Amino acid sequence: MIVIMKSEATKAQIKSVIERVKKEGLEVHLSEGKEQTIIGLVGDTRKMQDVAFTSYDGVENAVRISLTYKLTSREFHPENTVVDVDGVKIGDGSMTMMAGPCSIESLDQIRECARIAKAGGATILRGGAFKPRTSPYAFQGLEEEGLKYIRQAADEFDMKVITEVMDEAHIDMIAEYSDILQIGARNMQNFKLLQAVGKTGKPIGLKRGISGTIDEWLNAAEYIAAQGNFNVLFIERGIRTYETATRNTLDLSAVPLIKKLSHFPIIVDPSHGVGIWDLVPPMARAGVAAGADGLIVEIHPDPVNAWSDGPQSLNEKTYMRMMEEVHIMEKAMKEINALGESNS
Amino acid sequence: MIVIMKSEATKAQIKSVIERVKKEGLEVHLSEGKEQTIIGLVGDTRKMQDVAFTSYDGVENAVRISLTYKLTSREFHPENTVVDVDGVKIGDGSMTMMAGPCSIESLDQIRECARIAKAGGATILRGGAFKPRTSPYAFQGLEEEGLKYIRQAADEFDMKVITEVMDEAHIDMIAEYSDILQIGARNMQNFKLLQAVGKTGKPIGLKRGISGTIDEWLNAAEYIAAQGNFNVLFIERGIRTYETATRNTLDLSAVPLIKKLSHFPIIVDPSHGVGIWDLVPPMARAGVAAGADGLIVEIHPDPVNAWSDGPQSLNEKTYMRMMEEVHIMEKAMKEINALGESNS
Amino acid sequence: MIVIMKSEATKAQIKSVIERVKKEGLEVHLSEGKEQTIIGLVGDTRKMQDVAFTSYDGVENAVRISLTYKLTSREFHPENTVVDVDGVKIGDGSMTMMAGPCSIESLDQIRECARIAKAGGATILRGGAFKPRTSPYAFQGLEEEGLKYIRQAADEFDMKVITEVMDEAHIDMIAEYSDILQIGARNMQNFKLLQAVGKTGKPIGLKRGISGTIDEWLNAAEYIAAQGNFNVLFIERGIRTYETATRNTLDLSAVPLIKKLSHFPIIVDPSHGVGIWDLVPPMARAGVAAGADGLIVEIHPDPVNAWSDGPQSLNEKTYMRMMEEVHIMEKAMKEINALGESNS
Amino acid sequence: MIVIMKSEATKAQIKSVIERVKKEGLEVHLSEGKEQTIIGLVGDTRKMQDVAFTSYDGVENAVRISLTYKLTSREFHPENTVVDVDGVKIGDGSMTMMAGPCSIESLDQIRECARIAKAGGATILRGGAFKPRTSPYAFQGLEEEGLKYIRQAADEFDMKVITEVMDEAHIDMIAEYSDILQIGARNMQNFKLLQAVGKTGKPIGLKRGISGTIDEWLNAAEYIAAQGNFNVLFIERGIRTYETATRNTLDLSAVPLIKKLSHFPIIVDPSHGVGIWDLVPPMARAGVAAGADGLIVEIHPDPVNAWSDGPQSLNEKTYMRMMEEVHIMEKAMKEINALGESNS
Repeated sequence: MIVIMKSEATKAQIKSVIERVKKEGLEVHLSEGKEQTIIGLVGDTRKMQDVAFTSYDGVENAVRISLTYKLTSREFHPENTVVDVDGVKIGDGSMTMMAGPCSIESLDQIRECARIAKAGGATILRGGAFKPRTSPYAFQGLEEEGLKYIRQAADEFDMKVITEVMDEAHIDMIAEYSDILQIGARNMQNFKLLQAVGKTGKPIGLKRGISGTIDEWLNAAEYIAAQGNFNVLFIERGIRTYETATRNTLDLSAVPLIKKLSHFPIIVDPSHGVGIWDLVPPMARAGVAAGADGLIVEIHPDPVNAWSDGPQSLNEKTYMRMMEEVHIMEKAMKEINALGESNS
Repeated sequence: MIVIMKSEATKAQIKSVIERVKKEGLEVHLSEGKEQTIIGLVGDTRKMQDVAFTSYDGVENAVRISLTYKLTSREFHPENTVVDVDGVKIGDGSMTMMAGPCSIESLDQIRECARIAKAGGATILRGGAFKPRTSPYAFQGLEEEGLKYIRQAADEFDMKVITEVMDEAHIDMIAEYSDILQIGARNMQNFKLLQAVGKTGKPIGLKRGISGTIDEWLNAAEYIAAQGNFNVLFIERGIRTYETATRNTLDLSAVPLIKKLSHFPIIVDPSHGVGIWDLVPPMARAGVAAGADGLIVEIHPDPVNAWSDGPQSLNEKTYMRMMEEVHIMEKAMKEINALGESNS
Repeated sequence: MIVIMKSEATKAQIKSVIERVKKEGLEVHLSEGKEQTIIGLVGDTRKMQDVAFTSYDGVENAVRISLTYKLTSREFHPENTVVDVDGVKIGDGSMTMMAGPCSIESLDQIRECARIAKAGGATILRGGAFKPRTSPYAFQGLEEEGLKYIRQAADEFDMKVITEVMDEAHIDMIAEYSDILQIGARNMQNFKLLQAVGKTGKPIGLKRGISGTIDEWLNAAEYIAAQGNFNVLFIERGIRTYETATRNTLDLSAVPLIKKLSHFPIIVDPSHGVGIWDLVPPMARAGVAAGADGLIVEIHPDPVNAWSDGPQSLNEKTYMRMMEEVHIMEKAMKEINALGESNS
Repeated sequence: MIVIMKSEATKAQIKSVIERVKKEGLEVHLSEGKEQTIIGLVGDTRKMQDVAFTSYDGVENAVRISLTYKLTSREFHPENTVVDVDGVKIGDGSMTMMAGPCSIESLDQIRECARIAKAGGATILRGGAFKPRTSPYAFQGLEEEGLKYIRQAADEFDMKVITEVMDEAHIDMIAEYSDILQIGARNMQNFKLLQAVGKTGKPIGLKRGISGTIDEWLNAAEYIAAQGNFNVLFIERGIRTYETATRNTLDLSAVPLIKKLSHFPIIVDPSHGVGIWDLVPPMARAGVAAGADGLIVEIHPDPVNAWSDGPQSLNEKTYMRMMEEVHIMEKAMKEINALGESNS
């Protein structure tokens, strides 16, 4: 952290900042220029995050230069973390495919989804039993009944399950049925929920918040990691911008950026990212090309009759075609990775 | 809801949309133009929200024209709702002032804040005992100890209390100490929490989400109202935009817009809205002028030593000065309201 | 400017940054901490803006701490600048009112607008003769014919004229008819146009760009001021955000922020800010309360038949009512300003 | 266009809307439901864009359902347009590579850039001679001298030239040296400039505005096409969002969306899109995978000494490596395109 004094700052004002820093047990490095004095803080500045340096008289600005997260950072853990979902490895250089409906609607529907998903190469089945809905009058999910259906369908097709947890009170129940607990975009900064799922030790799929910054997302992961849970999967699902032609703006630059700043795998969700089914395949391809460790997409045997998210769901034919494309992209990425690490 | 067919849509495609609508028990009005056929849905279209009309072949677009919320709407309840906080009335045409620190730090600190707040004219004391923090290593609040302090301080100065609830598990405890339960911006769409606080029947201060739309905010209120709780207070606290010169962008147009669309009162929080203490007074004035039912501001006896949000906290002197200005604005608004309702 | 080295930076890497700085004739202040070395630049760092310090090996980050604009800054010119528009003074503590239609449609229409505008207290008549339109097929303005009409109407009612310049080629022509040259939001960073209008010496109404930051806006003003033209009026007209319930998001915090950072006056345009006529009066009041030096609003004798911007135009009755409210607000602000400058 | 009446709208109010529509020579289709009357407009509704239906009494909302652009639309011209840049074909299914420095600094520098660009496979050389800069004190380009250098360098390496035009007054001069005229992000809605470059008939590289919507971008292209110039290249260069970890947010969903809505080619600019050199290669790969017709990237022989945009410029080694990756991606896309058009 650096505190920049105004050009007209008095010696007393400078002294008062320095005293505050020293009170917290840190040291300072003073840079007295002709125009401005700069005070650099030395030591564990994490505890200084909340100090209102800009409210001190004579202070121009205060700049945070160290990270507020640690366990999540690539600096702390230089190697990639491989998350093991009961045998399915995510982040080991392979591409993990997750597919399934937005909502679990019936046993038949989720079994049919599982069949299609598996046929295309997916190893993890998605599907919501508890649905966060803008309106209280919209369908809110089949709850435990839905969990039973998705577990049965996944087992039948030898797949793993990812499903969303919206409420601390449901964690134990959902953990019984699901291999990965998903934290939805609206809950990225529901810190109590993050701590609670962290404690389960289970793999956590952490969606980026609707307007979550990269820095906030990394800190959200830190809430989980701080519970001793290093099975975090980042899921990029698009951010809210001024553009309304797509449901969200899929921020694929998050992929290389997260891989640079953190050791946890990152998955791309093109379905929520764009919200329009025929844009999903090109964005899925782009996600692979950007370096994602996996994809999560919405499929439905009959999108026009889906109970939710129909407009962004792929039917069997379009999903199978997309998967052909994705597999070609995977091969290309293998070739690229084999070029070696000369990119510096 | 209106479904707009493509100009090249076939009769069979049109029929298939109509059949779907009728299956749900609604009727249609068909507009067959030279260029386009338009299908209007008649009946309770709330249940059609999730239908993926845009995934039907031949459909150009589907436009929602009815509201997804009801109890919250001005249409449903044309008169202003006055929320009674244990005798303090909000929304009755007077201006309600809420002030206090970001975090409760000690009994002395919150008592000193209460003294200042009251001296300036506030009737409700704010202060956080459970703090949502981006980093898990930042100060998270004094928890129940803090609640005891704020209750004691409020009682001493004959004030009411507003404090944040982050977790269903704490609702009972917090409800024992606090008159208003606040839902923070990060939890605006934590639907389980909304339902749970709704059930208490207590006044709920519902902050707008960090990137919450007006429509989502109204629907969030509907989650509370649907529990039979009509004591909702909207709190505008700024939204996330591209601009970084202020902490958030305070959206004061939300004030007249919410008052037009809903019957619940709206409070403005200029402190979080701008994040810089010397911009708080002008934005407080502007909030009153825009027609807010109240203000909530952060004050601290010694902002540079505040444990959190120091840069946006007013000290005693600046708060007292701001309140002089706010009172002049209140008088002006009374004069304006007395002009009568000729504005149409 | 400050360059922050990575903790693992080598001495050679540090040296290479220092050499670059010295090459440009600046000095450095070195802060060697246990964790990080910080290099402060001393001298006129404006010329270092473009140096890619972050591309140097061993550099963590580079932080700009000095302003890139000068003549526009409050630091350079501590007193408020009063812009004299042929006798109408803007920024002298009074409120300047500008009103008129979006587009000039006919002599009759603009005369009728002038009559109404003047009756409500406006001294400056707005109206577009050259209209920037999203679609090439939309009405683009009456051009010089329109300029003649607005001049004639303004003269008849003893008003001044503000109208938009979109093109360098039209500056001389427009300057002949108009007292203030307006730069529209889409042209805030049309730097050649800024320089060209700067050279005229005329008052310039500089709208904030559709997504212009405060910093970019101040720099845009600097392009004008650098031509020796100190007659700049900032016009806040709302920014583009994710919210679609209003046309733009009127950022009233820009008012106190611009007044803190610059000496030029600032005008608020609530019509474009919200885009819905019945939200204009409350936002006009809020603009005055935030400390604006003036307002600019769209009026039309018959909004439903306006050729453009009808939905946000006030008719005679609603405008007159709004002006009553604005005058009450003005009085309140006078009272507030008379409290004296104790707010620190 | 559809006009939706309020449920309480009177017959007279409905009639008044219908009369207005008929006055413009259009017909209406009336849908009288139990809850709401809906008025559909039939005919060329482009001329109705500006009608303030929402200002009519009794109107709930007005929804535009037809496009405001025509020549640019895929509907108007179902086949892909191939832009021929003096023999280099863009949009014919191949990938066109453009590379070069941000600013032309000297003949030596641009020749060295041309050598590197060509070696990696680029056929078009980029480089700015007129630079739009936020601050008037930043380097503004070598102007005509720079144009001579880039032409000479391109000719030496048998490349074509793309460079930015900021000012109508320079069009003729720049057109003499450059094969493609680029419209920068800040000028996407500088309509006079769009019309003027349109008239040259030359290929136009139209960058997306800093906060340009897809719809506005398509309309900006329409300004060019309306001049009879069908040589338009869309260039996606990132949009402004709340995220500050990258310079902009590269919106790759624009690629399939533009290809769906328009027949003109689209190029991706990952350099401005992310602003950080080591994120450029993954985003370049992703751009190819999303289906772009080409890439434009910034390179510099010595990024740390670049006069502008150094942080996002690739040096020779990183550019050559990126191009190996891009070529692998191209092959993969060929394989994908060969799968045939079964994706529906």
